[in-house]
Order: sequence, then C-alpha cells, then structure tokens
Amino acid sequence: MSRRITLGVAQTGPVARGDTRAQVVARLTGLLRRAHERGCKLVVFPELALTTFFPRFLLDSEEEIDSFFEREMPGPETRPLFELAQSFGIGFYLGFAELDFSTGTKRRFNTSILVNRAGRIIGRYRKIHLPGRTAPELGVPWQNLEKRYFTVGDLGWRTWRTMGGVMGMAICNDRRWPETYRMLGLQGAELIMLGYNSAILDPRGKEPPEVRMLHNHVTMQAGAYQNASWVAAAAKSGEEEGVALMGGSCIISATAQIVAQAITMGEELISAECDLDICQHYKRTMFNFAAHRRVEHYRLITEQTGAIAPEADADSAA
Amino acid sequence: MSRRITLGVAQTGPVARGDTRAQVVARLTGLLRRAHERGCKLVVFPELALTTFFPRFLLDSEEEIDSFFEREMPGPETRPLFELAQSFGIGFYLGFAELDFSTGTKRRFNTSILVNRAGRIIGRYRKIHLPGRTAPELGVPWQNLEKRYFTVGDLGWRTWRTMGGVMGMAICNDRRWPETYRMLGLQGAELIMLGYNSAILDPRGKEPPEVRMLHNHVTMQAGAYQNASWVAAAAKSGEEEGVALMGGSCIISATAQIVAQAITMGEELISAECDLDICQHYKRTMFNFAAHRRVEHYRLITEQTGAIAPEADADSAA
Repeated sequence: MSRRITLGVAQTGPVARGDTRAQVVARLTGLLRRAHERGCKLVVFPELALTTFFPRFLLDSEEEIDSFFEREMPGPETRPLFELAQSFGIGFYLGFAELDFSTGTKRRFNTSILVNRAGRIIGRYRKIHLPGRTAPELGVPWQNLEKRYFTVGDLGWRTWRTMGGVMGMAICNDRRWPETYRMLGLQGAELIMLGYNSAILDPRGKEPPEVRMLHNHVTMQAGAYQNASWVAAAAKSGEEEGVALMGGSCIISATAQIVAQAITMGEELISAECDLDICQHYKRTMFNFAAHRRVEHYRLITEQTGAIAPEADADSAA
Repeated sequence: MSRRITLGVAQTGPVARGDTRAQVVARLTGLLRRAHERGCKLVVFPELALTTFFPRFLLDSEEEIDSFFEREMPGPETRPLFELAQSFGIGFYLGFAELDFSTGTKRRFNTSILVNRAGRIIGRYRKIHLPGRTAPELGVPWQNLEKRYFTVGDLGWRTWRTMGGVMGMAICNDRRWPETYRMLGLQGAELIMLGYNSAILDPRGKEPPEVRMLHNHVTMQAGAYQNASWVAAAAKSGEEEGVALMGGSCIISATAQIVAQAITMGEELISAECDLDICQHYKRTMFNFAAHRRVEHYRLITEQTGAIAPEADADSAA
C-alpha cells in the first residue's frame, strides 16, 4: 500500500441557526465532489459541521438543545454524505453533536468520527478539552458555553491503522493543548485530523485577529513537528449568527510547514499529497521517543492539574 | 515591585576550540555592558557559553574532556562576569559544562545557572533532554555526542520567584519537547530562559536551513503561548570549528509573538521590555490549567516512554 495519501480539507462557510440538516449535508456533499475531482482519498470536515455553533447561545429548552444533536450516525439526513463518500472511495472525518444513551442516561458529547473508504465508522472521539464556561460571562458580546452543553469526552485519545497510515483525531480547543498531540504521538499517529469553530475577534478586545490566527497555526505546527505527524485542520468560517469565525484551514507536515492553507472565509477545498513516510524519519531521529523522553521528570504533568507557583522569594531564601 | 522587566538576550558568535576562558568571558562582559546601556536588568547567555560546543568532537582523553568543564562557579576566570553584573544590578542566565563531585563520584552535566542581581546563584538546572548519541554516527559530517559526555540532569525542572517574576530554565534541545514548558508552566513560570547551540545545516542533508529555523521558533512560540510565559532564548551562532551554528536568538511573549530577534550570525544584544502581567491574563482564561486540563486522560505521557502504534488494521477489525 502506498504511503502517499491525497488528503482534502473541506472548510465550510457559516451555518445559520435555522439551516436544516439537509441543506448543510448538501453543502458537504458539494465539497466532497470537489475533493473527488482533486483525487482526494480522505477528507476532513469541521467540528459541529452539521449545525451552527450553538454553544454561543444560552438555551433553556431541552428540546431546542437536543435539536442540534444527532441521535444516530448516519441518520436519514446524513446518509447521503456516507453513500457519496463510499461511492467515491473516500474516507472522512466529521464533527457533530452526539446524543448518547448507551449508559442508560442521556449524555451530550462534542464528537468526531472517522469513516473508512467502505463507508464504515471505524473511529470515534469525544472532545476532552471543552473550552468556555457553564454560565455566561457578563460584559462580553458572545459566549462559549461548551462546558454547559457537553460532557467531557470519555473515550480518551486513540489512533487507528487505516487507509495506509496511523490516524488520530482531536477537536477544536484540543489543538491548543500539547497533551493532545503527545497522547496521539505516543500511539504512533502519522496524521491527526481536527475541525474547529473559533472566533477571529477576541470577545474581550485584547488580542488582534492576526495574533489569534498565529495561535491557531503555531500550536498545530508545533504539535505536528513534536510528534512527527501530519496535522489536517478544517475550520467553519465566516460570519455565523453575528460572530466572525476564523478560516485558516490548513494541512501541516511533520516538518511543521504549512503545505496547504485556505485563503477565503467561506466554502473552500484545499488538498495536498501527504507522504506519511516523512513522519518515520523524525520518529527515528529527533523524536525517537524511546531514546529521548525522560518520563521520570514529567510527573507533574499527570499528577497536578492546576499551576502552583513558588511562594517564597528565592532572593531572601537561606 | 514593577511587573515590567527589561530583558536582554546576548547572542554570541562562535568560540574556537583553543579560546581561553578569559577570552570568552571578556566577550560576555562586553555584551553585558551593552545590555546595561540598554537598561537590561536580566540577561540570558547561551548554552555552553564558555567553550566551543565540544560534543561535536570524539574525545578520548579524560583530561581533554574535563578541560571543557567548570569545577567551580564562579571560578577565577568567570568571577569578572559575576562582579560586573552585580555592579550593574543585572541578573543573568549562563550555560556551561559542570563537573560535579557532590555524590563522591565525578559527574558531568550540561548546566545553566540563574544569578540574581546581588551576584548570588539562586537557581541551577541540569539539561534533561540530551540529544544525539553516545557513539559517532557513520556517514554524517559532524556529530552530537551529548549522550556520551553528559549525565541526564538530576534536578528536574523548577521555578524561582525572583526579580519580580517566576523564572524557569531549560537548555537547547529541551525547547523541542513540550514536556519542558509544561513542567515549568505547572510551576507558574512567567519567563523561561534557555540557551542553545544548534547547527543550521542538517548533517543528513534533508532539512533546508529555513525549516530548521522554523523548528527553532515554532516550538518556543507554542511553548510560550501554551504555558502563558515569556520565553527568552540565546544562541551561539556563526561558523564554529567547521559547523555553522544558527542564530535566531529571540524574545517571545506569552502571546506567541516574537518581540525581539537577532538578525546577525555573531555577537548581538537584543532586548525588550517584558510585561509579566501578560502571562496572568492567559493563566486566568485560555490556559487556566485548573479549569481546563484533564489529567485523567494524559496517563500515557508519564507511563509510556516510546511510541507504540496499533498493529491491527482497523478496517479488518470485527
């Protein structure tokens, strides 16, 4: 099996609060056709790709909240995407809000799935690094209430050997946390897929937009390099329900270089031919973990959650 | 006490194998004078700043190896640096090769110290992520034999409250490893100082020079942002004993932006006024570790050293 994979990243424009699943899925299948024309065999769609980014709203009605969630995958409205991808022989990553009843109670997750070229769901990830708050913050013009609407993912990070490589998944805010990439790198990841919905403006008015885009890219570039893995990231972009979402979707090689990048704030398909063997060079040399990691000195990373600064002044110490 | 600190980074040019300590210290004191003229109150010098980067050589004579190491700090030749810094009221970070006899046997470390404004050593770090090999690699034009000459640091990573902030240290290859920054971030670091000696050309001829510089900066930018800390990095640069060392010394804010950067391959003093309170904004919001980290999902980071990829093909799984 070839170690080169032609990869597509499908950036989407905004999804309105009232858009139906059928409308959104039609847009996703349109992007999938463009990916097929470009020869892509794997396509990454955004986080919560099927709906507007509803965690920006304060919703009280259980029924309205649930209307943004999927009870089955594929369901009647999403099945056309699965069928078209299968007919093309394209695998894909898709983010959506998941209602889960497997434990007997209703749980809500911010989820992504990995679908193989035969149209079968072979991987599932539930977002662990939920950003934002459970209650609205006063004085800021928009919210991120993911901690209100979602349960922290219960599946951990995993990798899957499929489509000629070792694949991992993450979602949005996970990309800012080095632990995400390291957990995947320790499981041999050669391609990490993720989707995101991030505002390009700072609701507190402190960060310039280009600095927010720098954060978006620099964290993924470092994560790719430090774990000798490709990273492919699909944004939802453009003005969505009054909030400007950043684009900047990209494909990053294990060399940390951005090899493809979206240049619009709307629907855009970018692609690259990704040689997964580039990863193996770094995994054998600079980032040969077995040769160079010193876990005996990393203990705080798993033993301590918050930061604890020294209280004593080192200058006045004995 | 003010939360603004005027920080200098003293990039040096190459040090020849035959240069004496007195010659090198005279160059460092020259840079210290320039830092004083710029109002700096803290200066970062490179890794192994007092000698050539001797781990590139295969040395057999115990006496010759030891000639690159310091038995006391300050010693007669380094004392002028300490005295001048104290007279200026400047603290500093200095990297050097350390001979240690405290355990009854001779041990060699790649070490950095933090000296406060009163000229007292208040912090010591011994490099943990030693790169390279214990024996030369055939077919490459130069070596990194740090694993041959140094013992892995035994002091872990620490932070010190001094000079108006919370200070941490790392050395060279440590900057490529996210665990380094995270260990310091978990201890409240607001400024992480490090020195480095890195070749700008790839001895295996694979990486273009600008990609190696990208790696240098992108890892430090991500480490700064993800841990809400300034990072200040001092390079030894220029043609040293036949190997071109990268410059690119820089000061990076907690926003991931490079706010000062060396533009030469030689002796150069860069400086910036660093507001440590910028860190506190991020430590309270995006990188409020207590609110957002999920250590229960990070266990592999400390339980597993090397990478283990899944063997089974996910497509053929039941």
